[in-house]
Amino acid sequence: MAEIIRSVKGTRDFYPENMAVRRWIFDKIREISTLFGYEEYEGPCLEFIDLYAAKSGEELVKEQAFVFSTPGDDLLTLRPELTPTLARMVAQQQYNLVYPLRWWSIGPFWRYEKPQRGRTREFYQWNIDLIGTKAIAADAEIVTIAAMFLKEIGFSPEQVRVYVNNRRLMDRAFSELSIQNELKPTVFRMVDRMEKMRVNEWHVYATDGGLSKEQADGLLKLVENDLLWHDSPELVELFKLIEIYGVADYVEFNPKVFRGLDYYTGTVFEAFETGGKSRSILGGGRYDNLVAAVGGDPLPGVGFAMGDVVIELALRDAEAIPEGLGDQAQVLVTVFDDERVSESLRLATEIRNAGYRVVFYPEADKLGKQFRFADKLGIPIVVVLGPDEIETGSVALKHLKTREQVTVKREMLLDQLGKFLLS
Amino acid sequence: MAEIIRSVKGTRDFYPENMAVRRWIFDKIREISTLFGYEEYEGPCLEFIDLYAAKSGEELVKEQAFVFSTPGDDLLTLRPELTPTLARMVAQQQYNLVYPLRWWSIGPFWRYEKPQRGRTREFYQWNIDLIGTKAIAADAEIVTIAAMFLKEIGFSPEQVRVYVNNRRLMDRAFSELSIQNELKPTVFRMVDRMEKMRVNEWHVYATDGGLSKEQADGLLKLVENDLLWHDSPELVELFKLIEIYGVADYVEFNPKVFRGLDYYTGTVFEAFETGGKSRSILGGGRYDNLVAAVGGDPLPGVGFAMGDVVIELALRDAEAIPEGLGDQAQVLVTVFDDERVSESLRLATEIRNAGYRVVFYPEADKLGKQFRFADKLGIPIVVVLGPDEIETGSVALKHLKTREQVTVKREMLLDQLGKFLLS
Repeated sequence: MAEIIRSVKGTRDFYPENMAVRRWIFDKIREISTLFGYEEYEGPCLEFIDLYAAKSGEELVKEQAFVFSTPGDDLLTLRPELTPTLARMVAQQQYNLVYPLRWWSIGPFWRYEKPQRGRTREFYQWNIDLIGTKAIAADAEIVTIAAMFLKEIGFSPEQVRVYVNNRRLMDRAFSELSIQNELKPTVFRMVDRMEKMRVNEWHVYATDGGLSKEQADGLLKLVENDLLWHDSPELVELFKLIEIYGVADYVEFNPKVFRGLDYYTGTVFEAFETGGKSRSILGGGRYDNLVAAVGGDPLPGVGFAMGDVVIELALRDAEAIPEGLGDQAQVLVTVFDDERVSESLRLATEIRNAGYRVVFYPEADKLGKQFRFADKLGIPIVVVLGPDEIETGSVALKHLKTREQVTVKREMLLDQLGKFLLS
Repeated sequence: MAEIIRSVKGTRDFYPENMAVRRWIFDKIREISTLFGYEEYEGPCLEFIDLYAAKSGEELVKEQAFVFSTPGDDLLTLRPELTPTLARMVAQQQYNLVYPLRWWSIGPFWRYEKPQRGRTREFYQWNIDLIGTKAIAADAEIVTIAAMFLKEIGFSPEQVRVYVNNRRLMDRAFSELSIQNELKPTVFRMVDRMEKMRVNEWHVYATDGGLSKEQADGLLKLVENDLLWHDSPELVELFKLIEIYGVADYVEFNPKVFRGLDYYTGTVFEAFETGGKSRSILGGGRYDNLVAAVGGDPLPGVGFAMGDVVIELALRDAEAIPEGLGDQAQVLVTVFDDERVSESLRLATEIRNAGYRVVFYPEADKLGKQFRFADKLGIPIVVVLGPDEIETGSVALKHLKTREQVTVKREMLLDQLGKFLLS
C-alpha cells in the first residue's frame, strides 16, 4: 500500500464522533445566541490584509496570519479573527442597520502559530456583539451570555468563572500610582505576566521596564485588591445587573484581567477553568472605535469571541460531554436475499416517510453481518422482512439494546417502532 | 468619512437576511442527510497540493485553486472540493470504519475562477457519499437523496430534474461506433459541447477532433435516444428502485450527461432547472478508485456535491424561498425610564427563562422609538413596565402585527404571551 498523503499540521479531521461533539457545542451556541435575540451573520474567510493592518499593523498580521498573493497581486489573508470584518460590514451599511445591533456568528479562522494543546492553526470561533449603545446593561448582557453558555453546556460555577475588569478603572488606578500614560500599555502587559513569574523575578522585570520600586509595589498591591471594583461605578452597576440576570455565581471581579487587544476601552472579561492552568475559554470587552478604524463613523459596542478548541478541552476535563451525541439512524432495514430487495426498500421508504431516520442495507448479505453493522453504528432497531414475514404480511423487529424481539403485522409496524424507541 | 476597506472579489458578506436563507438551506440539507442515516463529518479547509495533484494533476490545481506557500515552504491549497479529503480520511482509518459508510458534510470551498452569475470564488458545498458497496441500490439511494432534497426544499418536478446516465453504457455505445478507447475522454467532452453549438458547427468541431463523419452522425443520433437506458441493466435496476423510493417524477434518463471528472465509472447524474439555462444545481456519480488514488486500498463508492450558489438562484427563480426566515426574537422588553431598568431586566430574564427569545432594550428611551425598533426587527410582541404597571403588579403587552394591546397581572404574563404568539 502506498503512503497516505498527510494532512496539514495544525488542522483537524472531524470524523463523525468528533463532528458530533462539535455540532453539539455549535447547537448550544446557536440556542443561547438566539435566546437573547441575536441575529446570525457571516463574513468571508478571505479578506485583504489592509483590513487587519488598519487595526493591528501589517507586520503583526503577516506574522500571525496566513497571507498570500493572488495573480492580481493583492495580499489576501485567511481571516485570523472576525472583528475587522464585522466592522467593515457594519460600516458598509452603517445608516441602514437598526441599533442596538445584536449579531452572532460561527465559522473557521486561521492563525499561523505553533500548534500545541488548546491551539490549532485552523479553528472555529463564536463571535457575538452588541453594537450601538454605551449602556452598561449591554456589557452586562454580553457577560451574561458568556456565563449562560458555560452554564447551559454543563459547567458548574465551581468549574469555570468569567473574570471581569474595567480598563477605565485600571487606568485611573495607574494614574494614582503616577504611572505615565505612555507607559500604561507596557504596564498592562506587566500585570499580565505576574501569574507566570515569581514575585522577585517580576519586580526586577517591572523596574527594568521603567517602573519605580514604589510603583511596582503599588501594582502588586493593586491587583490583589478584590474590592477595587467598588471604585468603578460601571462595575458596580454591572454586577448589580449580573445578579438580576441570575448568573452572579459564574462572574467575578479580577483586576489582573486586561485582554491583549488595544481597542478595548471599558469592560474587559475572560473565562477560565477555575482549575486554572488552561488557556482562556473566551474573552471580550467594550470598544468604542472599531467601525471608525475601517472607514466608518464611530460606534460603541461590546462583544466576545470563543474558539472551539479550548472549550472542548475544558468540557473533556470536566467530563461534561454527554454520551450518544449525533443524529444516528433509528432503524436499519435489512435485506434478506436478492429477491427481497424491492420489498425491503419499500418498507424502508414507508418508515422514513413516517419521519424516522432509516438506513437501508443496500444488498443481500448474511443477517448476522447486517445486525453487527447496526450494532457498530449504534442503530437501536433492526427490521427483518424474510419469506415467512412476507407470506404472513408481517415484519420482525429487534431492539439491539434491550434484546427484545417481536413479529407484528405490517400495519402495526410504526406503532411498534414508536414503542421500541421509547424503551 | 474615510473610504471603507473593500471586500475580496468573489466573496460574500452574509448580512442576517442572507444568512437566514443560507441557514434554511443548510438545515434542509441536514434534515435529508440524517433522514437517510448519514453521519456528519468535516475535513480541514487547508490541504497539501499533492492531495489534489494525485487526482487531477498539479497544473490544473494551480490554475483553479488558491495555492500558497508557508514559511516551511510546503504548497498549501484552500480546498477546491472535498472528495480528495474524504478519500484521505477514509484511507487513514480504512480498516477501522464500518461499511457501507454513509457520510455527509457542509463547509466552505474556494476556486480561483472568474466570478459571475452562479459562481463565486468562495462558496459552500454539501457533500454526501455512500462508500464500500457496488450495489446499484446505493446509486439509487444517492440519486433519491438528491431528488428528495429538491422536493423537500420546495421544487416541483416541473421545475427541476435529476438527469441520470451511465458511463459504462456510453462506453459500450461508443465502442459500437468504433470509437477507440484513447479517443473516448475527448468524445465525452464533445458530447458535453453539443448543447452549446449549432449542429453544423459541432459536426466540424467533432470531425476536426478525430471522429469520422459516420461516427459524428452516430453520436448525434445516440444522444437523442431516450430509450438507450434499456440497454443498461444497471439503469433498468436503478429506475426500478427510484420508483419504489417515490421520486421517479424528479428523475430522468439523459444520455448527454457525462460529468467532467474522469474518476466516475458507472452512474453519473446532474440536477438542473428544467427552464434550462442555469448551471447544474448538483452532480455526482459512482467511482471505484478514489481511496486508492491517495494511498489507500480500492473502495467503491457513490456520491454527489451541491454548491450553495446555484441552488439559491434556482430557489429565487422558482420563488420557493419562504418569508420570515431566521430565528427572530419573539419579545422586546422595553425600558420605561432609568429607575425601571432593573425591574424591566428582571421581567426580561423571567420571560427568557420560560424559553422565549427575548430582546432587552438596554437603556431608557422614548417608548415610540423602542416600539419602532421592535417593528423594524420583526419582533412581534412588545412588553411595557411603566410606573402604573409596577404599582398595580401588572404588565402591558402589545402585538405589533394584530395591534392588539392588553394589560395583565404579572402572573398571567406567560399565558398571555403564549396566546399572542399563536395569533
